[in-house]
Amino acid sequence: MNQINRVAIVGGTHGNEFTGAYLIQKFAQFPDLITRSNFKTVTLLANPHAFAAGRRYVEKDLNRCFLKQDLQDPTLNSYEDLQAKLIQDTLVSNGEKQADFILDLHSSTANMGLTIILVNSHPLNLKLAAYLNQLNPLVRVYRCSFKSIAENPFVNSLCELGFAFEVGPIAQGLLKATLFQQTEELVRALLDYLEQFNQGKIPSNNETLILYEHLSVVDYPKKPDGTIFGMIHPDLQDKDYQALNPGDPIFITFDDKTIVYEGASTVWPIFINEAAYYEKGIAMCLTQRRQINI
Amino acid sequence: MNQINRVAIVGGTHGNEFTGAYLIQKFAQFPDLITRSNFKTVTLLANPHAFAAGRRYVEKDLNRCFLKQDLQDPTLNSYEDLQAKLIQDTLVSNGEKQADFILDLHSSTANMGLTIILVNSHPLNLKLAAYLNQLNPLVRVYRCSFKSIAENPFVNSLCELGFAFEVGPIAQGLLKATLFQQTEELVRALLDYLEQFNQGKIPSNNETLILYEHLSVVDYPKKPDGTIFGMIHPDLQDKDYQALNPGDPIFITFDDKTIVYEGASTVWPIFINEAAYYEKGIAMCLTQRRQINI
Repeated sequence: MNQINRVAIVGGTHGNEFTGAYLIQKFAQFPDLITRSNFKTVTLLANPHAFAAGRRYVEKDLNRCFLKQDLQDPTLNSYEDLQAKLIQDTLVSNGEKQADFILDLHSSTANMGLTIILVNSHPLNLKLAAYLNQLNPLVRVYRCSFKSIAENPFVNSLCELGFAFEVGPIAQGLLKATLFQQTEELVRALLDYLEQFNQGKIPSNNETLILYEHLSVVDYPKKPDGTIFGMIHPDLQDKDYQALNPGDPIFITFDDKTIVYEGASTVWPIFINEAAYYEKGIAMCLTQRRQINI
Repeated sequence: MNQINRVAIVGGTHGNEFTGAYLIQKFAQFPDLITRSNFKTVTLLANPHAFAAGRRYVEKDLNRCFLKQDLQDPTLNSYEDLQAKLIQDTLVSNGEKQADFILDLHSSTANMGLTIILVNSHPLNLKLAAYLNQLNPLVRVYRCSFKSIAENPFVNSLCELGFAFEVGPIAQGLLKATLFQQTEELVRALLDYLEQFNQGKIPSNNETLILYEHLSVVDYPKKPDGTIFGMIHPDLQDKDYQALNPGDPIFITFDDKTIVYEGASTVWPIFINEAAYYEKGIAMCLTQRRQINI
């Protein structure tokens, strides 16, 4: 990759994550903000029906609809399946208008700060993440683990370059001005970086990066009938990206018993108490903190 | 009213307000917590379909379905209209099993602390509110204005005694242990008070009460097509129950212009940035702070 020609900023992949959905509306209204000298920037509202309804999705989670095999499956025809195919057509199978960098804007009820979610280890993605982390210490970098691209169901599977922003904490269905402004600044810094990349002038940055690598997910304490009987422990709430040691509290049950972390070694939990993950059976994701050379 | 015989604790009137919905499940599982010597306590999950779906409502806002004329209208047959009639039958038109005190449990994305929402000025409601406010300074008392009971569309219109708790800030669709525990303590203190009331031993409390009286609502800045172009100003976010003076910032537009409050006198805004009120065109409610004698 020597030249980026087209950057797509995607918002509203989840219709109740307003920060991204309204940011791309702002960018569409004030295009100078995202115009750069040596590539084209386009915006895309990914799930307009869900956004209009103020819900994460209409029929199924759009950001789980981008498995290659599903995109090729003509029998999948829910609103979100069709929308995923449309987005693929728009961003990938579009001849000269193909996007070569996709930024997908998300928000979380968890205290995710300004998280970059990597779905691969492309050197440019890593360098860009390190640059943004250097600009703003609220930026943290989380890397998902997929055995292969074929297992990645996210919008970002469409394109090797790019990643998602996951900003929080923010409730679903509303805007918080400070987080909106921080996210906007980050988007603009990202575009500036890509402009300099195209000019062969990559801004210098640290040669190392702290990466939080996905390990596993933890479900809520549940009764045999599947109903939950406990909550995130107050000591863990909002402690995303902080070390969790064996024996530390993770849940408190409805009858006030503390459940502790029983793993063998220290982990760094994120997505703690994400509202959208209750239905997925995820109370938090555990990660391993690593420093890597880039 | 000399004797309270039956107290109904209602949760999940809005299906994505988990604090109340899970609290009544806890109470149903551990009934000793709400059992008192001289009245019966019952629990009710008001909108089970919406709770199962993790949404505020299925077809329409249940807590706007209790207008007397609507409850009597056989042509209204949405899920929530039918549910409202069922709740009326259960709690009111139920002979000896009629509830004479209704506590309705809500939560808000706004920084409402532990708010009591009064829908009338019954002396027992006021005394109970003053008692709870004395126990816990996070408790604040907001009084809605209805010209008559016939204009009150809330669950609490079913019964002269009782009110709602509105706790926050908390995102929709999740549980926060600290707020869950604070709400539970408040419910149990309320039941203790009613038990003493039935014994003729009303706990002494202050003779005055700070009341926030509803004045008006303020919508978001909107374009002619109805889309919003601004957010709650960072200086106002989370400042519920704090004085707002003429000239103070209330919104910031997407192009970074500040909009100030242009009223003639100081007001006390609440429900600032409540997610569920975006669709209702309410960015905040303005109130007047008053001290009353009780």
